[in-house]
Amino acid sequence: MAKILSVNLGSSTLKWRLFEMPEEQQVASGLVDFFDNTKAEITVKFGDQKRTRSYDETLSLKDAILLLMDELKRLKLVAHLHDIVGVGHRVVAGGELFKQSVVITDKVLTQIDDLREYAPLHNHLEAKGIKRFMQLMPWATHVAVFDSAFHQTMPAENYLYGIPYEYYQKYGARKYGAHGTSVRYVSRRTAQILGKPLSELRLIVMHLGAGCSITAVDKGKSVDTSMGFTPLDGLVMNTRSGQVDVSLVAYLVRKLNLKSIDDMIDILNDRSGLLGISGLSEDQRELKKLAPTHPRAQLALNIFANRVVKFVGSYMALMNGVDALVFTGGVGENSFEMRAQVMASFGYVGARIDPEKNKIVGKEVDMSTADATVKTLVVPTNEELMIARDVYGLL
Amino acid sequence: MAKILSVNLGSSTLKWRLFEMPEEQQVASGLVDFFDNTKAEITVKFGDQKRTRSYDETLSLKDAILLLMDELKRLKLVAHLHDIVGVGHRVVAGGELFKQSVVITDKVLTQIDDLREYAPLHNHLEAKGIKRFMQLMPWATHVAVFDSAFHQTMPAENYLYGIPYEYYQKYGARKYGAHGTSVRYVSRRTAQILGKPLSELRLIVMHLGAGCSITAVDKGKSVDTSMGFTPLDGLVMNTRSGQVDVSLVAYLVRKLNLKSIDDMIDILNDRSGLLGISGLSEDQRELKKLAPTHPRAQLALNIFANRVVKFVGSYMALMNGVDALVFTGGVGENSFEMRAQVMASFGYVGARIDPEKNKIVGKEVDMSTADATVKTLVVPTNEELMIARDVYGLL
Repeated sequence: MAKILSVNLGSSTLKWRLFEMPEEQQVASGLVDFFDNTKAEITVKFGDQKRTRSYDETLSLKDAILLLMDELKRLKLVAHLHDIVGVGHRVVAGGELFKQSVVITDKVLTQIDDLREYAPLHNHLEAKGIKRFMQLMPWATHVAVFDSAFHQTMPAENYLYGIPYEYYQKYGARKYGAHGTSVRYVSRRTAQILGKPLSELRLIVMHLGAGCSITAVDKGKSVDTSMGFTPLDGLVMNTRSGQVDVSLVAYLVRKLNLKSIDDMIDILNDRSGLLGISGLSEDQRELKKLAPTHPRAQLALNIFANRVVKFVGSYMALMNGVDALVFTGGVGENSFEMRAQVMASFGYVGARIDPEKNKIVGKEVDMSTADATVKTLVVPTNEELMIARDVYGLL
Repeated sequence: MAKILSVNLGSSTLKWRLFEMPEEQQVASGLVDFFDNTKAEITVKFGDQKRTRSYDETLSLKDAILLLMDELKRLKLVAHLHDIVGVGHRVVAGGELFKQSVVITDKVLTQIDDLREYAPLHNHLEAKGIKRFMQLMPWATHVAVFDSAFHQTMPAENYLYGIPYEYYQKYGARKYGAHGTSVRYVSRRTAQILGKPLSELRLIVMHLGAGCSITAVDKGKSVDTSMGFTPLDGLVMNTRSGQVDVSLVAYLVRKLNLKSIDDMIDILNDRSGLLGISGLSEDQRELKKLAPTHPRAQLALNIFANRVVKFVGSYMALMNGVDALVFTGGVGENSFEMRAQVMASFGYVGARIDPEKNKIVGKEVDMSTADATVKTLVVPTNEELMIARDVYGLL
């Protein structure tokens, strides 16, 4: 019996889940919002209970971790903190160095920090966070689980860009992808649901949330994914543009009198996507409500669906066919309207969904019709469990 | 009986063809190489003859046009220059202003020049060239035929990027595409070969040459195309990168210590693509020869094919299926190796090619097997004839 903590650290929040392994039983989950404006708050959910404590000041990361440890003890979710034998840390960029999850040593910690140029908003912060956790819970095995690791099986044809090869050799300029832990969980679960070995399946996993990516999973391995060197590339997302003609970006830098391309990158990350197209909201539920009276709200949703359809189509061609299409992530799990809109394009490969089954939201469902030759499923993701499994496997 | 001249002006060359309309008979074709280093040369092909004259100095555009006129008369390809009643000029960027070919007036000429920001290497030069031609052949009707016009039927879902909508409204930031005249010719000819009305066909036209694009043609209309705001976007080409994560471009600007994104755009236009990946050549025939001993030559070809496969797959999804796949352009018409490599991915939609028929190069051929449910054809392009048709229609 081992308690394992999954940790996902952002710039102002610390998301966590506590599991009992190998039973894969979730003991508790929650969030420490330690740096939001002027206050801090910790939320703990367990069983059917939810506890929240607020503070009138922001907390340091160290205090946030100490608070979490206190709450876990106070609420008797652990008898002793030493019961937590492993901590799994989500890390965004693993580059080519990390092809799987690893036990964190000082060397690994330095390597994670060194990869910060690949994910400027994440890796440095994550390395600092891991260090703090290791200081405060030195008895536990700390494991790094990389968002990019699952995509390290991509062949060169798919991970290289059409740029001078030496940029790959010298600067690591290639596609890395993200959402790998989610896609890994979802593809394994899909194989279980379909009752077939993963090694016999060609899957296309659509992870659609605030960030969105689509991955082609052939025989259990990622062969291509829509995010690129960074998570800006690929699909249209809540506030991220996805693919844009680079020449257009240069043209806009001139037209908008920006100082550098970096200012444009900020616009493409924070003010584009559904928000930029609609000019109204980044939230698909909100856009759906506004659509009848605001044509650009519908336009934004149509563009979103259009890009999903095209990426899915491209990955069917890449694998010379597909066995199952899988929706996951907040939008993928909950928006039956978006699912229906996307699936309207795939009759030509024999993918057909039952409109009634499609109305089920947030649950595992095979929504294919009986005569569908390509299956369509919803499989809610569980990155945190996948992280806990990796930690348990490395104990 | 009307003689019509099709003109395609580059920075140092003037390509032309002379047609007899409406018979669509090609009288002669050729090239004036007027600004290549230190010499000039005019080539004229007619019947089975080819005449070349060289000069020890470069020519002005005006003198190049005068030389062409002289040669046409001297070789008796026209009795009088006034027999040329129409001249069709290829123009790269037509923006949203030109949805079809138009007779050129002073106003049109200004508008073409005003669109130069959309195609910095082309429109300004083309406007200057047209002006010269109009001065020297004032009796003829001059018509502008736009590379982008055919794609003006794309729906907003496909032509808009995931960027703030006001950039489209204020700066025309959208996808325009190119190769439109070629795709228009090829799709009409494909319908004739298949003996079906264009209005009943979903086609995917692969124009693969030095520049490459793929277009989805639904019922005769372009609904999506792989080139974007400029011809840099989309597929991997001879020296052009095609799609790249914009964040990677910003990262490389820093790593390479470039002064601005414009320097990076030059690299992506001139030193990337097949040339950049292989480090050896931009020529597919050359790369094919080198491939057995140079892995990166094969890698470049594989990446090229990979991008074609993915775009074709995405357009199948966009149209919920396809009736025929059509190869055109220098590589599309001649490289049976590349065609075979691409077509290996489309068994899942019922596209199957006869390896023997695929070996035919540079000719119209339906190379589908008898049991193929999706047809595959080679249709050599003829942009010049399409231009002549437009001019004849507007006389």
